[in-house]
Amino acid sequence: MSETIKYQLDESRLPRSWYNINADLPEPLAPVLHPGTKEPVGPSDLAPLFPNGVIEQEMSLERDIDIPAPVRDAYRQWRPSPLYRARRLERELATPAKIFYKYEGVSPSGSHKANTSIPQAFYNHAEGVRRITTETGAGQWGSSLALAGALFDLQIEVFMVAVSYHQKPYRRAFMESFGAQCIPSPSDRTEFGRSVLAEDPQSTGSLGIAIGEAVEMAASAQDTRYALGSVLNHVLLHQTVIGQEAMEQMAMADAYPDTIVACTGGGSNFAGIVFPFLGQALRGGPNIQAIAVEPTACPTLTKGRFAYDYGDTAHLTPLAKMHTLGSSFKPQGFHAGGLRYHGMAPQVSHLHDLGYLDARAYDQLECFAAGLRFAKAEGIIPAPEATHAIKAVLDEAEECRLGGTEKTILFNLSGHGNFDMQAYTDYLGGKLKDLGGSSDEVAMALSGLPQV
Amino acid sequence: MSETIKYQLDESRLPRSWYNINADLPEPLAPVLHPGTKEPVGPSDLAPLFPNGVIEQEMSLERDIDIPAPVRDAYRQWRPSPLYRARRLERELATPAKIFYKYEGVSPSGSHKANTSIPQAFYNHAEGVRRITTETGAGQWGSSLALAGALFDLQIEVFMVAVSYHQKPYRRAFMESFGAQCIPSPSDRTEFGRSVLAEDPQSTGSLGIAIGEAVEMAASAQDTRYALGSVLNHVLLHQTVIGQEAMEQMAMADAYPDTIVACTGGGSNFAGIVFPFLGQALRGGPNIQAIAVEPTACPTLTKGRFAYDYGDTAHLTPLAKMHTLGSSFKPQGFHAGGLRYHGMAPQVSHLHDLGYLDARAYDQLECFAAGLRFAKAEGIIPAPEATHAIKAVLDEAEECRLGGTEKTILFNLSGHGNFDMQAYTDYLGGKLKDLGGSSDEVAMALSGLPQV
Repeated sequence: MSETIKYQLDESRLPRSWYNINADLPEPLAPVLHPGTKEPVGPSDLAPLFPNGVIEQEMSLERDIDIPAPVRDAYRQWRPSPLYRARRLERELATPAKIFYKYEGVSPSGSHKANTSIPQAFYNHAEGVRRITTETGAGQWGSSLALAGALFDLQIEVFMVAVSYHQKPYRRAFMESFGAQCIPSPSDRTEFGRSVLAEDPQSTGSLGIAIGEAVEMAASAQDTRYALGSVLNHVLLHQTVIGQEAMEQMAMADAYPDTIVACTGGGSNFAGIVFPFLGQALRGGPNIQAIAVEPTACPTLTKGRFAYDYGDTAHLTPLAKMHTLGSSFKPQGFHAGGLRYHGMAPQVSHLHDLGYLDARAYDQLECFAAGLRFAKAEGIIPAPEATHAIKAVLDEAEECRLGGTEKTILFNLSGHGNFDMQAYTDYLGGKLKDLGGSSDEVAMALSGLPQV
Repeated sequence: MSETIKYQLDESRLPRSWYNINADLPEPLAPVLHPGTKEPVGPSDLAPLFPNGVIEQEMSLERDIDIPAPVRDAYRQWRPSPLYRARRLERELATPAKIFYKYEGVSPSGSHKANTSIPQAFYNHAEGVRRITTETGAGQWGSSLALAGALFDLQIEVFMVAVSYHQKPYRRAFMESFGAQCIPSPSDRTEFGRSVLAEDPQSTGSLGIAIGEAVEMAASAQDTRYALGSVLNHVLLHQTVIGQEAMEQMAMADAYPDTIVACTGGGSNFAGIVFPFLGQALRGGPNIQAIAVEPTACPTLTKGRFAYDYGDTAHLTPLAKMHTLGSSFKPQGFHAGGLRYHGMAPQVSHLHDLGYLDARAYDQLECFAAGLRFAKAEGIIPAPEATHAIKAVLDEAEECRLGGTEKTILFNLSGHGNFDMQAYTDYLGGKLKDLGGSSDEVAMALSGLPQV
C-alpha cells in the first residue's frame, strides 16, 4: 500500500542566495590557466565567452551570492522542488535505513539543469547579449537552455553531437519547440567544424567537438556568448538551491543525512545537493559522507588523474586542474549520456583529492535494475544518469539491513526518464550489455595529458 | 521578462471528497441499458467488470464522496497540483483578460489520468482483485494505470491498439517499466481478438477492438476486473479533485472564472475542472461559461447526436445515452490520440443537451501553433490534446482584447507533451495537415445507431 511522505516547502522559502563553497574550502582551488600562455586566466580572458555576472561568480570567494529577483521568479515555476521519504522502497528493501530523495525532475525540462540555464540566460540578457551558443549530448542541457532562452528572449544555438541529433529527434523537437536552433556537430558553421569534416566527412561528432564549435561561434560574434551546463564553479553554485532546500526539508522531517548520494558526470547535480551540507561540515557542523557515483565506462573520479587538462578535445578552452580521463578519452556508448564527460568539476575534484568525498563506479545493467526497482516502489521512472545514484543507495541500504544500522540516506533524483525510454526499451528487451572498465583506453588518454 | 505567479495549496488542503454532479443535475441522467435486454442495468450486471466500490460511485446520487485515505496518500505524491496565472502569455497577447491554468502534467504519468487510475486500483485491490485489464490508444491512460498497478500490487494488462503499439514504443516501455504487460490488439489472447484477426490478419486495431478484448478478458476470469480511463460517471467523479483545488486556488488569487475551458475526448479532464464550478452555479452560485474543445476530425459534441450508443465497436458494452458519432466512426489519423473517441461522457453530454455547456471544434494546425505560443511564453510544452484548450483560450483572449473586456479565463492544462514530440517534430517539419470536418463519415456512422 502506498504511503507518501512529501516535504514541500512554501515558495517563500525558496533560497534567496546561492551557496559558494569556495568561501569554505580548506585549501583554495588551483588557478585556471590560459590555454596559450599557461598563466592564470583573469576576467578579461573570459569576457568573450561569458557575461560579467557569470565571470564574477566563477571567481568569487563570497559565501552567499544573491539570487536576482527575476531568477527566483522563474525558479518559482517548479521550485521549491519536493523532497520525499522513500517509505515504500525502504519497506521493499527491508532496511532500517531512512531513505530520502530530492526530486529535480519536476522542472519543465525534466532535470536539475534548468537551475543554471535560467540564471545564465538572465545575466546574458541583462548585459545585452542577444544569442547564446552551447553544446549538448544527451539533450538535457540543451533543452534547459532552450527553455531559459524562451523566458529571457535570447536566441539559443545548440551544437548537438551529430549521432545524438539523429538518434534523439525528440530532444531536438523539444528544443525547437522553445524556439532554439539545433545544429548537428561537426557542422560547416564554424572553422573548427569544417576542419573536422574535412578530415572525416562521416564524423558522428563528440561532446568535445561540439564544445569547440560553440566556443568558436561565441568568441567570434559581438552579441553572442557561450554557456556550459556543468563543470564550472558558477554552474555548481547555481545548483546549490537543491541542497539548501533539502536541508530545510530534512529539518521538517526532523532528520539530517549521514550519507548523501548523487551521480556525477560533470559534477553539478552532485555539488548541488552535497555542497550546502558539506559547507556546514567544513564550518564545524555535523559530518556527512558524500558518495559520487559514476559509470564504470567513464570512471573520472575512480580511475582518472587529478591534473591539469583541457575541457574540450580541440584544446580551445582554458586548462583546469581536475579529475580527468584525458581529453582524448572516448567513452563507449552507454545509456547515461549525461555521464560521458572526460573531466570532473574542479571543485568536486579538489574536495575529492582532499578526502572529503567518496566515489564509486557501477556498470549500467545493475543501474537500470536499480532504477526499475525504484520506479515500481516510488512511481517515478528515473533518468539513466540518476539510476547510478539509486544503485549506490540500494547498496547502502542493504549494508544497513545486514548490519542493523539505522542510517539516514539522502540522494538526488536529478531527473525523470521520460526522454530515455529507448534505454529502458533496450534494457527490458535484453539488448543492453555491461561495458566493464576501460583501463587501456584510460591509460592511453591519460598519457596525452598536457605539460603544465 | 519572466513573471511567475503560482498558487500552490498546502497538502493539507488536498480535497477530502470527490464532487458528484449527479446530486445537482436539474434532470437525472438517462439510465444505462443492458446491451442484450435493453433494460436499465443494475449493479449485478456490472459486477463482472468493476469492483463494488466503483459500481456504487457509478450509480451514486450523493454529492460528496469520501476519498479513501490510501488514495489521498498516493495523490499526495504530486497533488495539490499548481495553478498558474499566465502573465507572460497575457502580455504577449496584449489582452486585458486574466488567464489562469491548472497544470495536471505534474503527475508521474504526465497527465490527469492518474487521478482516476489510483482510486480504481485501490478499490480493486481492496476487494481482492489481482489483475486489471484495460485498453489504451495514445498511451496516457495505460501509463497511468500501470503506475497505479505498481503502487497497489496489481497485475495490469493493457491492450494497446496495434498501430500505437508499434508506433509508440516509448509509451510501451513506460508501462512495462512499471511492470505492466502490453499486448498489441487485436491479439490471439481473446476470442474477440482472434475473430478480428481471422477476418483481417493485417488489422492494425482500434480503440473499440481493444476495449472489446479487455472487457472479454476481465469478464472471463474470477480474479480480474476491467478499468476505463474516461466517459463513465466514476471516472469523471475522480477527476473533480482538479476543479475543487482550482476553486481554492482561484480564491487565493482573489478571482473567480467567468469562462472555463478544457479539451474533450471522453470528457473526463473537462468534467474534472468544470463540474465543481458548475455544481456551485447549479446550486445558485455564480454563473460560469464552460467551453468544451474538440478536434474537427472527431467532433462528438459539435456534430454528433445525443442518442443511445455502444461504448465499443464490438457492442459488448452497455448502451449509454451520450453524444456520439456512431460506434463505427473511425477518426482520421490526427495527433491528439486522447481525443479520438466516438462518444462523450453521458454526464457531459446531458449537461450540454440541457444548455449548460458550450462546445467548439478546431483543426490541428491552429492547435499546435497555439500550443507552441503557450510553450514559449509559459515554459511548458503541452500535450497535443491540451493544445485544443489553449487555442480556444487564445481566441477568447483575443476577443477580450478587441472588446476591451476584463474577463477571467481558467483552463485545464491536462498534460505535458514529453511523449508527443513526434507530433511536434511533424508540425515543425511542416508535415502535418489540417483534416477538416468529417461530415460524410459522421453521417454514415450515425445511420448505424442502435434502435432502443
